[in-house]
Amino acid sequence: MDIVEIKEAIDKAIENYLYEKEPSNLYEAVKYLPFAGGKRLRPLIACLACEAVGGNFVNALPLAVALELIHTFTLVHDDIMDKDEERRGMPAVHVKFGESTAILAGDTLFAKAFEVASAIKDAEIAKKILRNLAIMAKEICEGQQLDIEFEEMEYVEESQFLEMIEKKTARMFEQAAMGGAIVGRGKREEIEALQKYGLNLGMAFQIWDDCLDVIGKDIGKPVGSDIREGKKTLLYIYAYEKAENKEWLKYYGKEDANDEEVQKIIKFFEEIGAIEYAKEKAREYSKKAIDALKILPESEAKKELIKLSEFAIEREK
Amino acid sequence: MDIVEIKEAIDKAIENYLYEKEPSNLYEAVKYLPFAGGKRLRPLIACLACEAVGGNFVNALPLAVALELIHTFTLVHDDIMDKDEERRGMPAVHVKFGESTAILAGDTLFAKAFEVASAIKDAEIAKKILRNLAIMAKEICEGQQLDIEFEEMEYVEESQFLEMIEKKTARMFEQAAMGGAIVGRGKREEIEALQKYGLNLGMAFQIWDDCLDVIGKDIGKPVGSDIREGKKTLLYIYAYEKAENKEWLKYYGKEDANDEEVQKIIKFFEEIGAIEYAKEKAREYSKKAIDALKILPESEAKKELIKLSEFAIEREK
Repeated sequence: MDIVEIKEAIDKAIENYLYEKEPSNLYEAVKYLPFAGGKRLRPLIACLACEAVGGNFVNALPLAVALELIHTFTLVHDDIMDKDEERRGMPAVHVKFGESTAILAGDTLFAKAFEVASAIKDAEIAKKILRNLAIMAKEICEGQQLDIEFEEMEYVEESQFLEMIEKKTARMFEQAAMGGAIVGRGKREEIEALQKYGLNLGMAFQIWDDCLDVIGKDIGKPVGSDIREGKKTLLYIYAYEKAENKEWLKYYGKEDANDEEVQKIIKFFEEIGAIEYAKEKAREYSKKAIDALKILPESEAKKELIKLSEFAIEREK
Repeated sequence: MDIVEIKEAIDKAIENYLYEKEPSNLYEAVKYLPFAGGKRLRPLIACLACEAVGGNFVNALPLAVALELIHTFTLVHDDIMDKDEERRGMPAVHVKFGESTAILAGDTLFAKAFEVASAIKDAEIAKKILRNLAIMAKEICEGQQLDIEFEEMEYVEESQFLEMIEKKTARMFEQAAMGGAIVGRGKREEIEALQKYGLNLGMAFQIWDDCLDVIGKDIGKPVGSDIREGKKTLLYIYAYEKAENKEWLKYYGKEDANDEEVQKIIKFFEEIGAIEYAKEKAREYSKKAIDALKILPESEAKKELIKLSEFAIEREK
């Protein structure tokens, strides 16, 4: 097992599964993001989880690719809803191909994900994975709906925020790790351990992602997008609770805020300790993720899973 | 087996499967169309096909509901793309709930469909059905893409048009009939017969639907929508090929055409024989559908399937 080999196998599998060519406008839009690279985090987790319970990662590839396609589908549709114009440093799908084709490309990626996952050979396992993916996808939609609704609210509780990112982001990491363990025919306690790992890793990942929006480098979209969109991140919630002066709120969610106004908010988040608070939360989740792996036997895959959890809270993009 | 009993069971199953309540804005949008009635044609076909091969329709309910949800999902997204503002005589989902929630409601219906279909007990059958539904959904997207692209073209071949409606509409009828037969554990030739039935019925249904756009009564949306949107229907293709005078083309696809202009086109379609041509095509497909059922033993379900095929080319809405 070699992480480079796994990554290559994932890329190859994505290419092979997305074999369609016509109608060409549709499939150019469908392939645009999956073929543009990306960290392949979710597929990697699925493959590593499979290996960590003694399975062969090749058996996890249908699940791995399905997860990447569902992830991409959510990016395509979210960018339409959020009116985000850039993704991975390129024009968003709806900007490049128009909104109708972008809606359809997202739908097609979604459909393809289930087609791909149905390639899992064992019928009982395939049925379970397909069911889990469907429920996960539903929860992602619920999380996205909450995220949008929160934009219009002045305040949300931290617990509401955590529920939202659990659905929107963490469930997919959970299904990646748990699904990989199921496909790898792990023991019940191993599957549960990897489920816990994935869920906590996903929480760490999303909270760190929110920090990157204000401190990140080269993140493939403009710094401060969340600020302009009025996203209720952990940084916002902490700052809202701490700050007596609510002056800064008038720039938060101001769509046409200039860079100076955005920088003002970022500086304010820094000074009030919101960024450090969120970072510390992310570190706690990352630690919980790593702790969950304790019951697994030592292996290369386990080491890599630990590395991923460290990477989640160290990355700069 | 009683058709009224089956219809009630389908309505009840849709209600039971769509149990979610929160976030309330999302689930109001999700339930808006499924709870607004509708002909339930696809679920009915699935249940009847199951009975026609000797199965119990109750076992086909997960498939039946999944098909209705996928159908509804396509309506929600198509109405956004086509900028249609009415559906089933009510404001379209994106008009009532806003575009973001409509995109998400469609996605949620899609995810729910796979969750519901995964309730099929036998794992081998569930896996096969889920795979077929995924491929079908992909083809529906391809068909919708073609439909949109055709709007911008002055002419498409009849064969291109038939490929488009096969993907956009007929595949779902095919999977309803075939899937019902699979769940009912029909013999191979019975499954194939019902597949052929469904595909041809779907073709008849769509071509008749295009006729209804110009001759229908109380169809839940404005008469002549296809004309204003420049849809390349069989009526258009026939008229385009027959008519030497292309004067009428300037009103076809004119978004703000007034009722008089639309009526002019309809009268022209009538006179040149385009409506009768399309109706005749629909009748041919309906006949092929009925012919395919010959190898099935006589049963109440078979009789109802024949009735549905007749209904497809007689209905006024």
